[in-house]
Amino acid sequence: MVAPVLNARDLEFMLYELFDAEAMTQRPRYADHSRETFNAAMETARTVAEKYFLPIRQKVDTNEPTFDGQNVHMLPEIKTAVQAVIESGLSCPTADYELGGMQLPRIAANATGAFLSAAGGTMMGYTGLTNANCNLIEAHGTPEQIEKWVTPMREGRFAGTMAMTEPSAGSGLADLTTSATAHGDGTYRVAGNKIFISGGDHELNENIVHLVLARVKGAPKGVKGISLFIVPKFLVNDDGSLGARNDVWLAGLFHKMGGRGQTSCAMSFGEKDGAVAYLVGEENQGLRYMFHMMNEARVMVGTAAAVTAMTGYQYSLDYARERPQGRLASCKDPQSPPVNIIQHPDVRRMLLAQKAYAEGAYALCLLGAQLSDDERTAPTEEERQKAHLLLDFLTPIIKSWPSEYGPRANSLAIQVLGGHGYINEHPVEMFYRDNRLNPIHEGTYGVQSLDLLARKVPMGGMAGYQACLAEMEKTINEASTDAAVAGFAKELTEAIQTLKSTTEVLLGAMAEKNIDLALANSVKYLELFGNVVVAWIWLKQGIVASKALAGNPHEDDQKFYKGKLQALKYFYRFELPEINVWSKILCDLDDTTYEMQEEWF
Amino acid sequence: MVAPVLNARDLEFMLYELFDAEAMTQRPRYADHSRETFNAAMETARTVAEKYFLPIRQKVDTNEPTFDGQNVHMLPEIKTAVQAVIESGLSCPTADYELGGMQLPRIAANATGAFLSAAGGTMMGYTGLTNANCNLIEAHGTPEQIEKWVTPMREGRFAGTMAMTEPSAGSGLADLTTSATAHGDGTYRVAGNKIFISGGDHELNENIVHLVLARVKGAPKGVKGISLFIVPKFLVNDDGSLGARNDVWLAGLFHKMGGRGQTSCAMSFGEKDGAVAYLVGEENQGLRYMFHMMNEARVMVGTAAAVTAMTGYQYSLDYARERPQGRLASCKDPQSPPVNIIQHPDVRRMLLAQKAYAEGAYALCLLGAQLSDDERTAPTEEERQKAHLLLDFLTPIIKSWPSEYGPRANSLAIQVLGGHGYINEHPVEMFYRDNRLNPIHEGTYGVQSLDLLARKVPMGGMAGYQACLAEMEKTINEASTDAAVAGFAKELTEAIQTLKSTTEVLLGAMAEKNIDLALANSVKYLELFGNVVVAWIWLKQGIVASKALAGNPHEDDQKFYKGKLQALKYFYRFELPEINVWSKILCDLDDTTYEMQEEWF
Repeated sequence: MVAPVLNARDLEFMLYELFDAEAMTQRPRYADHSRETFNAAMETARTVAEKYFLPIRQKVDTNEPTFDGQNVHMLPEIKTAVQAVIESGLSCPTADYELGGMQLPRIAANATGAFLSAAGGTMMGYTGLTNANCNLIEAHGTPEQIEKWVTPMREGRFAGTMAMTEPSAGSGLADLTTSATAHGDGTYRVAGNKIFISGGDHELNENIVHLVLARVKGAPKGVKGISLFIVPKFLVNDDGSLGARNDVWLAGLFHKMGGRGQTSCAMSFGEKDGAVAYLVGEENQGLRYMFHMMNEARVMVGTAAAVTAMTGYQYSLDYARERPQGRLASCKDPQSPPVNIIQHPDVRRMLLAQKAYAEGAYALCLLGAQLSDDERTAPTEEERQKAHLLLDFLTPIIKSWPSEYGPRANSLAIQVLGGHGYINEHPVEMFYRDNRLNPIHEGTYGVQSLDLLARKVPMGGMAGYQACLAEMEKTINEASTDAAVAGFAKELTEAIQTLKSTTEVLLGAMAEKNIDLALANSVKYLELFGNVVVAWIWLKQGIVASKALAGNPHEDDQKFYKGKLQALKYFYRFELPEINVWSKILCDLDDTTYEMQEEWF
Repeated sequence: MVAPVLNARDLEFMLYELFDAEAMTQRPRYADHSRETFNAAMETARTVAEKYFLPIRQKVDTNEPTFDGQNVHMLPEIKTAVQAVIESGLSCPTADYELGGMQLPRIAANATGAFLSAAGGTMMGYTGLTNANCNLIEAHGTPEQIEKWVTPMREGRFAGTMAMTEPSAGSGLADLTTSATAHGDGTYRVAGNKIFISGGDHELNENIVHLVLARVKGAPKGVKGISLFIVPKFLVNDDGSLGARNDVWLAGLFHKMGGRGQTSCAMSFGEKDGAVAYLVGEENQGLRYMFHMMNEARVMVGTAAAVTAMTGYQYSLDYARERPQGRLASCKDPQSPPVNIIQHPDVRRMLLAQKAYAEGAYALCLLGAQLSDDERTAPTEEERQKAHLLLDFLTPIIKSWPSEYGPRANSLAIQVLGGHGYINEHPVEMFYRDNRLNPIHEGTYGVQSLDLLARKVPMGGMAGYQACLAEMEKTINEASTDAAVAGFAKELTEAIQTLKSTTEVLLGAMAEKNIDLALANSVKYLELFGNVVVAWIWLKQGIVASKALAGNPHEDDQKFYKGKLQALKYFYRFELPEINVWSKILCDLDDTTYEMQEEWF
């Protein structure tokens, strides 16, 4: 059995039918593109995924990178595969043509990357983070910095990282202690330790460009005293050739439960005479710049979680179609042959749940990518601002919902395979391990929930919140005229009412009462809002499917669209009603966790 | 940081305050026991756990057993640890004194085993399965079989397994094809392949006694034609010495995501001239006998899941108490020191949820152990029958609820540690992997749900169901007179009402309509019933805690009991209300999964 990496028909549906990615080609930046060029990029990605990543996926999982105190050793096949991505142009698909990019809109690039991410897992983290690092320097660096660092990264010669977390600070960035000292020549010297640096060291590229958060001597305490620096592994001479080794060292590799395609590093900066560092932008503005990369990374995390769920779903679906076992309860004849397990309603439940989680999550991520295109290239400034607002608002949900439901989908994939899902003859247990990182990195689930409730909802007089609700209303209005989905529109309307009344209670409590108590159940708010948003995304998919079915399409397409409608129904029957439980906890300002005392545990 | 393996105070609470295990010592079989002997056994277990298992736990996880085509190789420390269990008498703690046992009641034995299971994980599977194998042969074998096989197993010289699953049948036991042929001398020759045989081969013991399901030539098709055989690795001479190697071979080891302390084997029986086999009981009654062991194994699985959740909870609790990070939302002063993360309400939520899941699950398993004692040793036949009925009824829930919520608890333990939870410097990621097997083996989650709804509920004119409800009513009556818990009693009453009305709808549908549709959402019924049962278990704990608090106990005990009440509250606020969502799906006879078509995926 060779399960497809992803369902290409479904990606096509999302790109062209759900989000109309072709409309991007009307914009000047994408004028050279067409549905054909998008498809060609996806086909290339699929080919690279199947040729270079799929065959080594399990070997990479069982052969962690090692560190001999000097160098990192990893399977040479990883370098070959990463090089194939770079040579195919897929390492920086959204970058300008003149910088070596394909100038693809992000929505098309995301679908392209999905094949690579599904087959390559965290091996794609090397180029993904490099790309995000480039985007940050392009946005906030000087032309010289762009020339010196971005160009070789775009060419695939250098790699890039993001170095934030410290051993004693973790999510509490306010407490980071890595120091930066002005050297008098415009450069700085950075010293400190960072942990969990993805791709922090390896031999895949000539050089590694770290973007490091540090505190300039004398800077204010807390998050307002953090600056951002470019700190390369090797210095670079003015002619672009590599110079001296910088004072940046790998202290050790972490042994992760999954995601073993990418090194996770403890890094030591400046343990000798200080690591040469170049300030990005202005001092003390570092966190703001870093969030340029961080927000992109958050959408990447959501996407990785969704894609891992999609590929696990495909795998378990293929298995269920081919594995005979047992009989239906209605069959009392032991002489009858066993049925394929997909015939069992409970297996269908597990597949349908995976479909609803995975395709709902991924469509949400594509919406994020589209908003990211729109904030840059939509025709009017108003549209650009609105897209920016919506993306900013939705980012904690785009990061979190797939990260929570992706691992659930992968757990169901294991369950479909039964005992066979628990052993490494099949990749589903690897997906389960890989995906468990996603609710943790780039801001944990709890951090995202506080970002949503305490920052994003009140932001700008609730502008993002209102904009999000207005988008949902539009979809509801559209659905209300179609009998096939009008019932779901009504249910979504009720769900939004629940969301609104819950939000009102919480904002009132935040303003008037104990803020710690008001935020105590923020995770439940994130879950509530997330389920409403994904219900909306599913209604959007349902509208498209219903319209398409009305056009009496080809038989295969009929089946495809019916599957979409069934997943929509599943989501509204089995998942959406959970919000009522969470809303009650929130509206009661439930104090159970808040009043629990340390000594009572 | 050295987190305790388990919270000894909590085990004491469950054993003596919640379930009054001391009362067992009034029964003749346990007359030599006392609270002191129970505690001594627990203390021994804790010592063995800490001395032999804890230090090797991670090493065992990262050094899977290997097979060279002839023999299995595993870390020698495993043999040392297993021998320490045997020598301490804890390998068969419930067995008769004359058979080398400690004649402990099962409830005390379970708490004793909890320490070993928490520290040793699946390494405890070798002696656990051996014990269950002995119990089966003692119940259904001949005196000669007991003498020949049980005695050396009780002495720790032999090990035992359970060999059911076949490559092409999986959960569909009706289709198993392993054959048995009468040899004319009272013995049989067995031939066939089995997979996922835990402890199927290893060098820890002199001999391995397989209990093998096979089909005697000419037997009826389906489950009515299955017989049970003793098939040893080595034949045994009349004087008890080892004889010839039997035709039983290890075909390969599976590479599991977790639980690497125990081999999981593909076994080949009779590939040469047939494996010598001894019939247990009568032909074609094998499945019934096997369920003696299977039911015991199901309670073992639930226990392992609960215990793994408890130890993960302890570990993350210790971590949260010692790890400073961030500040509360109410604190705006970046100069203030970071708080320990246990101060964050969301971390308390994750700890409280773990406590509610783990201690709820384990108390449920102890109830199962107590019922298992009662069905054997309760003073009157009526009590014994009632206990048998209740245990039989509750077994799918005792197996499944801990298996579902245990991994959830372990996922939360990872989340409390954040990035540190995802790397193998801490054991929580191992617990997460280990625990994921539990919803699969000894009957999957879906299989349990069908067992509950289609078999256990209607069984004997709903006798088990009614008995279970009657027990819950008793607790509710008791709680209703105590103001501290009366509110929860009221909520449980409503929950039971929901359970009853849902059950009525489903039984009606099963009788009148499409049985496949009526059973399509059986998993939701299992979840509903499970949450009601665990809510009941928590109410029982709350009653005890409330009474104890009224007695104005020592300060440490006050805190402990307040923690119990808070976990009770957590369960009723955050978990129990979910049943309303599931009840609606069930009462609607929701056809979403049932009507989904294979081609629509």
